[in-house]
Amino acid sequence: MKTYVNEIKENENVDSLFLVREKSSGVTKTGNPYLKLKLGDRSGEMEGRIWTSVEMFAQSFERDDFVHVKGKAVSFQEHLQLNITHLEKVGEEEILLSDFFPVAERDIDEMFKSLTEISQQVKNQYLKKLLCLFWEDEPFLERFKMAPASKWLHHTYLGGLLEHTLSLTQLVLKNAPHYDGLNMDLLLTASILHDLGKVEELSYKRSFDYSDEGRLLGHIILGVEKVEEKIRQLPEFPKDLSTLLKHLLLSHHGQYIWGSPKKPMTLEAVMLHYLDDMDAKINGIKQFLKAQVPDGAKWSAYHRMFEQAFYVPNLWEQMELTNNIEKNESEG
Amino acid sequence: MKTYVNEIKENENVDSLFLVREKSSGVTKTGNPYLKLKLGDRSGEMEGRIWTSVEMFAQSFERDDFVHVKGKAVSFQEHLQLNITHLEKVGEEEILLSDFFPVAERDIDEMFKSLTEISQQVKNQYLKKLLCLFWEDEPFLERFKMAPASKWLHHTYLGGLLEHTLSLTQLVLKNAPHYDGLNMDLLLTASILHDLGKVEELSYKRSFDYSDEGRLLGHIILGVEKVEEKIRQLPEFPKDLSTLLKHLLLSHHGQYIWGSPKKPMTLEAVMLHYLDDMDAKINGIKQFLKAQVPDGAKWSAYHRMFEQAFYVPNLWEQMELTNNIEKNESEG
Amino acid sequence: MKTYVNEIKENENVDSLFLVREKSSGVTKTGNPYLKLKLGDRSGEMEGRIWTSVEMFAQSFERDDFVHVKGKAVSFQEHLQLNITHLEKVGEEEILLSDFFPVAERDIDEMFKSLTEISQQVKNQYLKKLLCLFWEDEPFLERFKMAPASKWLHHTYLGGLLEHTLSLTQLVLKNAPHYDGLNMDLLLTASILHDLGKVEELSYKRSFDYSDEGRLLGHIILGVEKVEEKIRQLPEFPKDLSTLLKHLLLSHHGQYIWGSPKKPMTLEAVMLHYLDDMDAKINGIKQFLKAQVPDGAKWSAYHRMFEQAFYVPNLWEQMELTNNIEKNESEG
Amino acid sequence: MKTYVNEIKENENVDSLFLVREKSSGVTKTGNPYLKLKLGDRSGEMEGRIWTSVEMFAQSFERDDFVHVKGKAVSFQEHLQLNITHLEKVGEEEILLSDFFPVAERDIDEMFKSLTEISQQVKNQYLKKLLCLFWEDEPFLERFKMAPASKWLHHTYLGGLLEHTLSLTQLVLKNAPHYDGLNMDLLLTASILHDLGKVEELSYKRSFDYSDEGRLLGHIILGVEKVEEKIRQLPEFPKDLSTLLKHLLLSHHGQYIWGSPKKPMTLEAVMLHYLDDMDAKINGIKQFLKAQVPDGAKWSAYHRMFEQAFYVPNLWEQMELTNNIEKNESEG
Amino acid sequence: MKTYVNEIKENENVDSLFLVREKSSGVTKTGNPYLKLKLGDRSGEMEGRIWTSVEMFAQSFERDDFVHVKGKAVSFQEHLQLNITHLEKVGEEEILLSDFFPVAERDIDEMFKSLTEISQQVKNQYLKKLLCLFWEDEPFLERFKMAPASKWLHHTYLGGLLEHTLSLTQLVLKNAPHYDGLNMDLLLTASILHDLGKVEELSYKRSFDYSDEGRLLGHIILGVEKVEEKIRQLPEFPKDLSTLLKHLLLSHHGQYIWGSPKKPMTLEAVMLHYLDDMDAKINGIKQFLKAQVPDGAKWSAYHRMFEQAFYVPNLWEQMELTNNIEKNESEG
Amino acid sequence: MKTYVNEIKENENVDSLFLVREKSSGVTKTGNPYLKLKLGDRSGEMEGRIWTSVEMFAQSFERDDFVHVKGKAVSFQEHLQLNITHLEKVGEEEILLSDFFPVAERDIDEMFKSLTEISQQVKNQYLKKLLCLFWEDEPFLERFKMAPASKWLHHTYLGGLLEHTLSLTQLVLKNAPHYDGLNMDLLLTASILHDLGKVEELSYKRSFDYSDEGRLLGHIILGVEKVEEKIRQLPEFPKDLSTLLKHLLLSHHGQYIWGSPKKPMTLEAVMLHYLDDMDAKINGIKQFLKAQVPDGAKWSAYHRMFEQAFYVPNLWEQMELTNNIEKNESEG
Repeated sequence: MKTYVNEIKENENVDSLFLVREKSSGVTKTGNPYLKLKLGDRSGEMEGRIWTSVEMFAQSFERDDFVHVKGKAVSFQEHLQLNITHLEKVGEEEILLSDFFPVAERDIDEMFKSLTEISQQVKNQYLKKLLCLFWEDEPFLERFKMAPASKWLHHTYLGGLLEHTLSLTQLVLKNAPHYDGLNMDLLLTASILHDLGKVEELSYKRSFDYSDEGRLLGHIILGVEKVEEKIRQLPEFPKDLSTLLKHLLLSHHGQYIWGSPKKPMTLEAVMLHYLDDMDAKINGIKQFLKAQVPDGAKWSAYHRMFEQAFYVPNLWEQMELTNNIEKNESEG
Repeated sequence: MKTYVNEIKENENVDSLFLVREKSSGVTKTGNPYLKLKLGDRSGEMEGRIWTSVEMFAQSFERDDFVHVKGKAVSFQEHLQLNITHLEKVGEEEILLSDFFPVAERDIDEMFKSLTEISQQVKNQYLKKLLCLFWEDEPFLERFKMAPASKWLHHTYLGGLLEHTLSLTQLVLKNAPHYDGLNMDLLLTASILHDLGKVEELSYKRSFDYSDEGRLLGHIILGVEKVEEKIRQLPEFPKDLSTLLKHLLLSHHGQYIWGSPKKPMTLEAVMLHYLDDMDAKINGIKQFLKAQVPDGAKWSAYHRMFEQAFYVPNLWEQMELTNNIEKNESEG
Repeated sequence: MKTYVNEIKENENVDSLFLVREKSSGVTKTGNPYLKLKLGDRSGEMEGRIWTSVEMFAQSFERDDFVHVKGKAVSFQEHLQLNITHLEKVGEEEILLSDFFPVAERDIDEMFKSLTEISQQVKNQYLKKLLCLFWEDEPFLERFKMAPASKWLHHTYLGGLLEHTLSLTQLVLKNAPHYDGLNMDLLLTASILHDLGKVEELSYKRSFDYSDEGRLLGHIILGVEKVEEKIRQLPEFPKDLSTLLKHLLLSHHGQYIWGSPKKPMTLEAVMLHYLDDMDAKINGIKQFLKAQVPDGAKWSAYHRMFEQAFYVPNLWEQMELTNNIEKNESEG
Repeated sequence: MKTYVNEIKENENVDSLFLVREKSSGVTKTGNPYLKLKLGDRSGEMEGRIWTSVEMFAQSFERDDFVHVKGKAVSFQEHLQLNITHLEKVGEEEILLSDFFPVAERDIDEMFKSLTEISQQVKNQYLKKLLCLFWEDEPFLERFKMAPASKWLHHTYLGGLLEHTLSLTQLVLKNAPHYDGLNMDLLLTASILHDLGKVEELSYKRSFDYSDEGRLLGHIILGVEKVEEKIRQLPEFPKDLSTLLKHLLLSHHGQYIWGSPKKPMTLEAVMLHYLDDMDAKINGIKQFLKAQVPDGAKWSAYHRMFEQAFYVPNLWEQMELTNNIEKNESEG
Repeated sequence: MKTYVNEIKENENVDSLFLVREKSSGVTKTGNPYLKLKLGDRSGEMEGRIWTSVEMFAQSFERDDFVHVKGKAVSFQEHLQLNITHLEKVGEEEILLSDFFPVAERDIDEMFKSLTEISQQVKNQYLKKLLCLFWEDEPFLERFKMAPASKWLHHTYLGGLLEHTLSLTQLVLKNAPHYDGLNMDLLLTASILHDLGKVEELSYKRSFDYSDEGRLLGHIILGVEKVEEKIRQLPEFPKDLSTLLKHLLLSHHGQYIWGSPKKPMTLEAVMLHYLDDMDAKINGIKQFLKAQVPDGAKWSAYHRMFEQAFYVPNLWEQMELTNNIEKNESEG
Repeated sequence: MKTYVNEIKENENVDSLFLVREKSSGVTKTGNPYLKLKLGDRSGEMEGRIWTSVEMFAQSFERDDFVHVKGKAVSFQEHLQLNITHLEKVGEEEILLSDFFPVAERDIDEMFKSLTEISQQVKNQYLKKLLCLFWEDEPFLERFKMAPASKWLHHTYLGGLLEHTLSLTQLVLKNAPHYDGLNMDLLLTASILHDLGKVEELSYKRSFDYSDEGRLLGHIILGVEKVEEKIRQLPEFPKDLSTLLKHLLLSHHGQYIWGSPKKPMTLEAVMLHYLDDMDAKINGIKQFLKAQVPDGAKWSAYHRMFEQAFYVPNLWEQMELTNNIEKNESEG
């Protein structure tokens, strides 16, 4: 059973799995070599030291490996440190990613089920078939379900991409019928596929970071290429429909300056952009408020990307006013 | 009965109400004075001339007056021109504004009824009372129902402000419950009141234009002042609630550069901004597509404010594809 | 008598008033609880510790309270620390704000007298009455005289708002007559009132910070509301005059991007903007030069907001040149 | 005596001096050559035709020449046209520039006298000598007194550069003593010299336009070079003083984006920038209001460079309120 | 043989091929229908009228068709107009595109030969094979050789894309060896392929305009897709190499604001961006100088996109100075 | 012989030259005064202490002096510290600048020889003479050869200005003949002189920093002034040629926002800007990659000025692919 870093106490013996975040070697004052490690899991990080059989252990694992560690927690210069007596590399298949990274609060399989159910509302035969190709692509699905939606800004947890995709798709379902003449099939398909390039843009099995492809090409292009790859398997897929769908993916950031090489040029593209931006921003602020508000404070810390702080209080709770908020939550 | 400018044919006698858009005097080659008028209604404009009793007529009306005109349409230099034999100023109460300006397609009273019904979902007693004060303010309501929402960009017709307000409020009803913890009462109240300053910002009884107050102070400030004026009549109204509500009004443009003196700092303010912007933009594009697309063209003209053109085709209709669009329309 | 933090020496006994800037609890290695405080006044901050009667003291005061403290200064890890034997909360009325915060160099009452004298040059009866309403509003005046003008940039000391207001009003007196046709009454009134919203925007009785209202609405809106509140008490006040005056307040930042929801649209608004900006910037640079120039350096540190450094030398003094500068100073 | 274009009536004989703004040749339907001219002076432009001795006249003058013309005004296609019977080129020395271009309202020699008087307040011996070199440079003075300050924006008339320079210098005299420690000598010298590069940047003897040097180098650089040229004649002139003075010239536009290669880095440079910008803008708006406000309108046309319209009314006049404005004018 | 529009004279009979740029119908004063055409070729446009057999002709061709026309040029309201007696639609294969649009000065086949020769310097086997696939794709080549490089800015003539591509590739050949460590193979391949998406972005067989795909997706994305399509035919093509190559295409505009979804992140991408931008700008200015400089003028008209004018003179020629310019030209 | 800071080991005796970067005094716990120094050379910095004859030593040197130091390296709080027994100030002429600052990899005299050889290709007699004046100005040349090209961004080492100048001039030689009609003489002269103002903008004999003149006027203006100074010695130098040359210097940053007071207005100025920017950026990235890439990393650190990271890998080396890169290097 996993022992989390933030549960470890002084003088306890530890026997659990960790991720090696840093690895370097040092020399004691008496001239003996030792290994300095930083061990992590989803709850935090701690220092580790290997004082014996140093050379043997040093060759048996690398930075970014998952390892099975035995040792004892001792206090050194006001911090806890793990004196490691045994360490063994373990494979990815032996660990639970969710032990090592934050994970979405909602159940991932449930969210995925909701998404595929909504996708069945798409009636256009070509778009329907296109979505099916994705739903049948197991290697893709495995990554799609676990990927975060962003490194910094919003949905930055395992399952975050799926959560954001489902949320946007539900928003589209609610908003598209509000206006005459918007094409629901196109909007649903585009909202389901809009960020799929993030599956390749972000790596998240060791830390949340951008892959080389992600940095050099970006999720917008990676997504368009992925969609194009599936469309090639559907020879009847109309060219114009493909162009329109790709336009929605390309333009969903809304402005050149936000990395879209095209501005939205159809009503569907305009709606997709606004709802995507709103969902990302609301989730991002909520995550930030959870993490960056001192107890009892009325204002969050300053948010660097948004260049502002956010106001926290829920007046209704504080003022015991008659209000409407329970109703909202039950519907949410 | 009103005869519209675009119905008048050569050599017809005309007997109808018009708005005097321009008025100046000229002298014929034979040295006689005459009056040159531009007469308008919602269908267009035409030239008018008064050749007799010039001085008497000249003193009886001014530019921007509504007038009852009798005369005959003749052709001059390839354009129709009205030779006026009789002209009489009429009061505002004798005309129908909707004869002179474009008007919303949806029935104004029906829209207003929908809005007040939604407003009854607000449970917080203070916000409820605040809305009631507006619903009881007949002079305000009269203007609120008829005002356009903008001079250039979106909902530029009589009843446009009401239509936009109702649309935004419905969007709030759909979207707020999608997220936990957003305050529906605050959002509903703010969406109903967000643009009410436009009642004073825009003048629309002669042409759609900005009032002096509108230009010098702007609808955001005018709206906050109007809300403050009503809140003063509710001495128990909590200060913090008033501040939050005004913050939503002030920040609903989202950015300094778009004229908001504050950026949205609460989740409700963030949502209000996105949905308001989306509704204005979608309506604006739809109006533009109606007016600025040559027959059969696939692209609109270049839109100066948005700095782009828009793509027109409805692929579904053209390609006779199975699609989902009827369903959307029936729900819309 | 006040002992300032920067006067306290090792091993001295201290008996004075301080502001509690931080308060938290700790446990000694031997398991005993203690209180950790940060105590401050206008000269700086120091650590404080309460080792005895911890629970009793802990309940008797909070962060941001003013307290009467007795104890002894000891050295710990190269810093001074106050071992507190006695601590008692005191009311705001028992302290001098100027013991705790920097204060304007010029006498506050004298500056206020100068300002009210200038205000008597306003001849327009409505503006004259409006100013009188402010001069008779004692609670407002108390705050107006003590408030700083800004948290970061300029006049960041008690009395700074008054100093800036007086300075701007004097500049208006000098500059308005330079041009034909500018309305001196409007300019004087607007310069006196232009920043009065800062009285509510900034809190300064514990530290210089923004109030909730200040953050959510901003001093421009708060000022316009305050002016509107007074104008309501003057039923004859002409609407157009009120609009013009409020326009000057709204537009005095000059650009959307600097937080003004309107750009200056009258000559008076244009002048007010330039002189306000010049006064704020010159004072801000002077404050910065006092604080951020190493001894003997010719260049200040880099100023983050202005994104540049400033040049310091006074060539005249260095080069013993014949010059004009004494004259300027005697007039200043 | 000069007959102005806007005074010429149909069928009058004309005998006066004009500027040839355009010159081209045509052929009548009967195959005879003729000359088409556009003749101008400060009051406007009119068409001119030469039907006889065409070849001889054609060789005797060019576009941009001043000419003495005799002929008769006739009406052609609703416009007046001058049928020229005699035309003779005249030299620049035979005309009055002010007959052909708008000229400052204030007397040019009087303004220049005021400026030189102020310049005597400069006490620093080096700056004093520098200014003297300019006052002794007759060819420079001749151009300096007549040049406009800008082609488009402000003081766009003969003598405009001098008027703006004097105005800025007077503003400096008023504002510098308001702050401690600003160097009046430096500020006076810089304000007198700040725009002198415009003498070479703008050509104005045929039309207001930019010279090649003006376009390729700009008045800021041309001015610095001119100042450097004079300083070379003063071998004792301190290097640091020269650098500071040139910094004020270089930075007076305030921002890179407005063409200054350096931002103001001293208090004097900051003040010079604000006052220069204020003076240019106030003059520019006043000129615009004179030219671009329809009779009785409350709003000017849209100003392209400032991207806004301006509000016109003088409430005091309209409302017959007690006011302060006469006093201002008498002082101005 | 083609008769060009600008060669047609009054009363001449015309028998030649034209492009129908506009087509509409009218009614004569006597009530007879007629057809109004605008006929064009590379030399200009003229009006055409069909007065007889109107219905028959009307059905035989459309706007944007090439037609064989017989008729007579007559003068109407000061313009020439073609009274058409015979008109017949012709296929694209019967016309020479270069009769209808401007064409590159350099021979297209020669330029293409130069480009393919340079491409043989690429040694990397994968990039070599990739280029071969393009050189073997006849339908692509046909379009690639004829396409313009832009609608507005630079190389706006048939063959312009090829000319720009060759020019950039030659620049790369010259500049890459100047720095250590830049990869010539990657740079050559990317410069050859960088704008190939313009083949589909621009339509040019009727007028120079953007295709639907071009507007909705843009040449950057279209180019990346085209490259991806070819790479799929090369199963061994290394993934990293493909990513790097696509990064050069994506980032060659250099900035988000100029439509690149990624900024250049490798030295090769940085160089490609600068040389591409320099070549486009120099060609664009040269084209502009040819078209937009009045005879003898020293300054071009104002260039809207570049927001400036350009200086024309060649001092060397004017001043008969000893100079270096012949040498340059001989090398060019 | 110089002992470099990074070569010094614990307990070694040191006898070498250093630069005094910081100097302050302290008092030991036993009450004795001592001196704290920071000593530096091109390899780094270390602490120094003088415990004896403190007063005598204190008076014998200042911060920024070069000194001859004898002492012993001891370990204190995990860092090395030099206990100094002897210290003596030495003159600038006794040290080698390159011992104290990083220096260009290429030999400075060789680079200078290449530059002067290229300058002989200039045939225009005036430009030729102008360059000669610079080549004969020994005090200028001494500084020109040693100056860095920038404090932060590119070529930040002794000889960097010369290296960048030579590189740009070689680029001009390669690129100018690629286009018809560019003036090689003008381009060569301008590229040689374009950054010469940096000789006075940057000080580099104690540390790389900006001089007062550099900060207040900038290298663009300083360079134009220097060129103007030389041109004055050539009375025949044509005015237009001087204006054009200065335009190239003024505009070489390309945009106002990058500090150029003029945008490039001739083809030569356009080319100079692009090549200068490309050379600075490529060198800057290469320097950054050397310094800011952790071993084995594929991505550099984030570059603050360029606001991005750079991609490092050389695929060819890693993948052992056939490639072209050796050829490039041999030519470079």
